[in-house]
Amino acid sequence: MRFTFRCQVRWDDMDAFGHVNNVTFFAYMQEARTGMLFAGEAAEHIPDLIKGVVVARHEIDYRRPLEWRPEPIEVDVWTTHVKSASFTLRYEMRDQLAKPKPVVLAQALTVLVPFDLDAGRPRRISHAERAFLHRYLEPDDLSR
Amino acid sequence: MRFTFRCQVRWDDMDAFGHVNNVTFFAYMQEARTGMLFAGEAAEHIPDLIKGVVVARHEIDYRRPLEWRPEPIEVDVWTTHVKSASFTLRYEMRDQLAKPKPVVLAQALTVLVPFDLDAGRPRRISHAERAFLHRYLEPDDLSR
Amino acid sequence: MRFTFRCQVRWDDMDAFGHVNNVTFFAYMQEARTGMLFAGEAAEHIPDLIKGVVVARHEIDYRRPLEWRPEPIEVDVWTTHVKSASFTLRYEMRDQLAKPKPVVLAQALTVLVPFDLDAGRPRRISHAERAFLHRYLEPDDLSR
Amino acid sequence: MRFTFRCQVRWDDMDAFGHVNNVTFFAYMQEARTGMLFAGEAAEHIPDLIKGVVVARHEIDYRRPLEWRPEPIEVDVWTTHVKSASFTLRYEMRDQLAKPKPVVLAQALTVLVPFDLDAGRPRRISHAERAFLHRYLEPDDLSR
Repeated sequence: MRFTFRCQVRWDDMDAFGHVNNVTFFAYMQEARTGMLFAGEAAEHIPDLIKGVVVARHEIDYRRPLEWRPEPIEVDVWTTHVKSASFTLRYEMRDQLAKPKPVVLAQALTVLVPFDLDAGRPRRISHAERAFLHRYLEPDDLSR
Repeated sequence: MRFTFRCQVRWDDMDAFGHVNNVTFFAYMQEARTGMLFAGEAAEHIPDLIKGVVVARHEIDYRRPLEWRPEPIEVDVWTTHVKSASFTLRYEMRDQLAKPKPVVLAQALTVLVPFDLDAGRPRRISHAERAFLHRYLEPDDLSR
Repeated sequence: MRFTFRCQVRWDDMDAFGHVNNVTFFAYMQEARTGMLFAGEAAEHIPDLIKGVVVARHEIDYRRPLEWRPEPIEVDVWTTHVKSASFTLRYEMRDQLAKPKPVVLAQALTVLVPFDLDAGRPRRISHAERAFLHRYLEPDDLSR
Repeated sequence: MRFTFRCQVRWDDMDAFGHVNNVTFFAYMQEARTGMLFAGEAAEHIPDLIKGVVVARHEIDYRRPLEWRPEPIEVDVWTTHVKSASFTLRYEMRDQLAKPKPVVLAQALTVLVPFDLDAGRPRRISHAERAFLHRYLEPDDLSR
């Protein structure tokens, strides 16, 4: 199961080349991720992540340029690994309105580490967090 | 008649004080404004504004702090003056979900000038643009 | 006496019109303001503002467009009013490298309110803060 | 030889966790990259890149959190591969003021593709561009 987030494109996300700037795709990923991990059921079931989780690594491959439009784009997020103190999410960003068919804008992954901001250090993933992340598990066969 | 735009709040819009940063409200205004002037019927009826319009002036009064949440906020936009080569928009930004009743987050205005980017200078407002802006006219009695 | 901040322009500050976006000027003002109020001598003499100060109002008039360049722009900041629980700063943003002479990019003002984030409410300006702000006082004859 | 860029940290680069947000590091990389490829000698010797170059891929590993401070951070950039129609840059971002010694904040790489915006397609790297990129060549033994 994938978490799908509809992300608004802001006009100012475009740069002087007239396309959404490469940096902004990480903002889109962040919005999809916070939508999955900080809001809705997550806010209820795994309330500690919103108190502290840090990004350890990102990878992204850009497939198509994007221009501003009033309709949101779609960002899929799912889990590929859950270790004891880190987990990996993958993303697919799509222009679902492209003709004749939807196109992939970018594919990406993020390694995240739950963090105890008060203690100033990483912490282990809780059982509830593991169970929540496993709902969206789609193991990744492609070696990196 | 007011144009109402539902604007997503991005998690990263918050600053180190844990509130949406004051700068970001101008991004929300920009999104509401481009939603009104660059998209939908505007894209069809007044296609030249998207080719160039510059901000001459902004004023804003902040009323309440805003924290990130998954639901969009509401931004109303309407016209208060249309001169020969500039026009003024007003905005009301609201947390429509606040309890026990909606609250105003900020009120603002922008003076805009249609701009011919190729010629590098301001241009007059066309008849079609004037008619479009008049749809949203709500003259402002309060002198500033 | 004015506080002068040299502010880097980021390439991504430009929007699809090829100019620094209007929203970004408020980021420049924020950097000049934090340079004045949160860093250097301010960090030593008035350490409480960095713990909480909110923007109540902004006004800005844009004078010239700005394009990305590797050299910073100059932002002057000074105080025009200090009341019991708020104060007003003015700004002049300049392209000091423009030929044949420097040009003003924008002029602006901000009304700021010291804020007790823990208590969740505004607080009065301290004696030390008043003295610090008075160093940069340049009263404004033009009523607004 | 590495290109070293001193990048200002903006107060608003921090998010609600009180650290510079992960997304912003890509803005720092972009500034270092544009400083290397669009400004100074590059503006003179390889004037076509600023007319169009797109990011095909990014990787980043975050090492340490960063808080706002008035002093810039240091970003090193260098070339690791130059192919016929793409090239790879690596980055090291450092807090050069950390005590007792400088610390690495993040390490990253970007694959870039020169792009003909008018034709809407990638183009080959010119001789002048190859020579320029080779000045900063530091081949990478770690295959990826």
